[in-house]
Amino acid sequence: MSENPEPQDQTDVAPDRPCSAWVAKVITLVPGAFPGVLGESLTGKALDEGRWRLDVTDLRPFGVGRHKNVDDTPAGGGAGMVLRADVLADALDHVGADMPTDRARWPLVYLSPRGARFDQATAQRFAACEGVTLLCGRFEGVDERVLEEYGIEEVSLGDFVMTGGEIAAMAVIDAAVRLRPGVLGNLASTEDESFSHGLLEHPHYTRPAEWRGRTIPDVLLSGHHGEIGKLRQAEAERITRERRPDLWAAHVEKKRGGP
Amino acid sequence: MSENPEPQDQTDVAPDRPCSAWVAKVITLVPGAFPGVLGESLTGKALDEGRWRLDVTDLRPFGVGRHKNVDDTPAGGGAGMVLRADVLADALDHVGADMPTDRARWPLVYLSPRGARFDQATAQRFAACEGVTLLCGRFEGVDERVLEEYGIEEVSLGDFVMTGGEIAAMAVIDAAVRLRPGVLGNLASTEDESFSHGLLEHPHYTRPAEWRGRTIPDVLLSGHHGEIGKLRQAEAERITRERRPDLWAAHVEKKRGGP
Repeated sequence: MSENPEPQDQTDVAPDRPCSAWVAKVITLVPGAFPGVLGESLTGKALDEGRWRLDVTDLRPFGVGRHKNVDDTPAGGGAGMVLRADVLADALDHVGADMPTDRARWPLVYLSPRGARFDQATAQRFAACEGVTLLCGRFEGVDERVLEEYGIEEVSLGDFVMTGGEIAAMAVIDAAVRLRPGVLGNLASTEDESFSHGLLEHPHYTRPAEWRGRTIPDVLLSGHHGEIGKLRQAEAERITRERRPDLWAAHVEKKRGGP
Repeated sequence: MSENPEPQDQTDVAPDRPCSAWVAKVITLVPGAFPGVLGESLTGKALDEGRWRLDVTDLRPFGVGRHKNVDDTPAGGGAGMVLRADVLADALDHVGADMPTDRARWPLVYLSPRGARFDQATAQRFAACEGVTLLCGRFEGVDERVLEEYGIEEVSLGDFVMTGGEIAAMAVIDAAVRLRPGVLGNLASTEDESFSHGLLEHPHYTRPAEWRGRTIPDVLLSGHHGEIGKLRQAEAERITRERRPDLWAAHVEKKRGGP
């Protein structure tokens, strides 16, 4: 409906729908995978409330010839198939028609293990944009020339390979949507979590106070907020030091260097 | 059906079904999210063919009291809710009944940003097991004591936070399933990809030979396999050096150190 340039009767728009919802545009050969898990739980509720919008574009109809081929064999030989630059470009032009061309306002992303690691800072950057367009690969990958031609940002979920970019796109969307206003019930919970202060999160405990002979640390039950804060900070530091020397080194460096 | 201890008439078992399919067991508060994208495309075809099996367990029925509560407020205060150790333990005991207790044969995993980074080596390790059990968190996390009691391996998709562990579980399953025999049509394609040699993958090209004035590197069209191999190796090295100094350093170190 958003592509219709005609003025419309607005009575079908829910009155509590935010006027500028965050938008995730996804180009994929597996459109049936969406919204999938994104339509459930917190992200699903936010989707229903109009806090974000999901536009899924099936790559298949942009294919060439009678069989709508989207891929071809790799130049130079080798296993697998490569998604064609011209097919991808047609799909990108189609979804891009109503997007700002300024990538700082609307990132254009290809999910690929060759990309820059997706992290909380990237999630925050994407969440602060008007929306993001995510190109999901399948098979061996995409023709390099489409990445160059469109200045596409390559983002990687990590040093592993999946059958396609769809799950990575879901991860990016989930991580960004939960940072949007009103999506999490309790806003405080995004401030005290892993990575927001450069540390892994401290351990959590809840009732029962004793379980299989294991108790909750006394301090947490003391009601002494100062001591509780100190214990949690010490635990977050300990876990980060033990498990992630890289994060710990960056944290120490940052504390030394000032703000 | 697999839980039925009675001998059964075997005529309902497809004859081409592998006798020991790889199994992914998932414990989640969002069972409707599965199989989701895993039921599509290559992983879906392999699921239909019985090359792997997905057992999803809803955590909710293991909740306590009339409302089947699975979570409670964090000891020591703070935002959000924490999944109860006793509830999780009941679910783990339920799904664990027919699992080998040897974690080397059947890893027990909690998806958490505090865990060890999931990577291709971990995907290979999981794929080589009989199966894997994946515990998906929601809210602030799980009571630390259940992780200790069960010796649960914490695995992280990366340095970012999602609303739950479900998408991470899907990523782990997809990355492992595609490494199982017969899942990818062309086995060679798992050997020549990112990370299998410690390098990012070289660029891909396919038809058309010229597109928007951009051409495919001549060497790739030459048919000279030796030169093509050299170009691809050089490109993989260049991209790794430029984009991932950490991987490049490890690669150089490994080449220096011998085998």
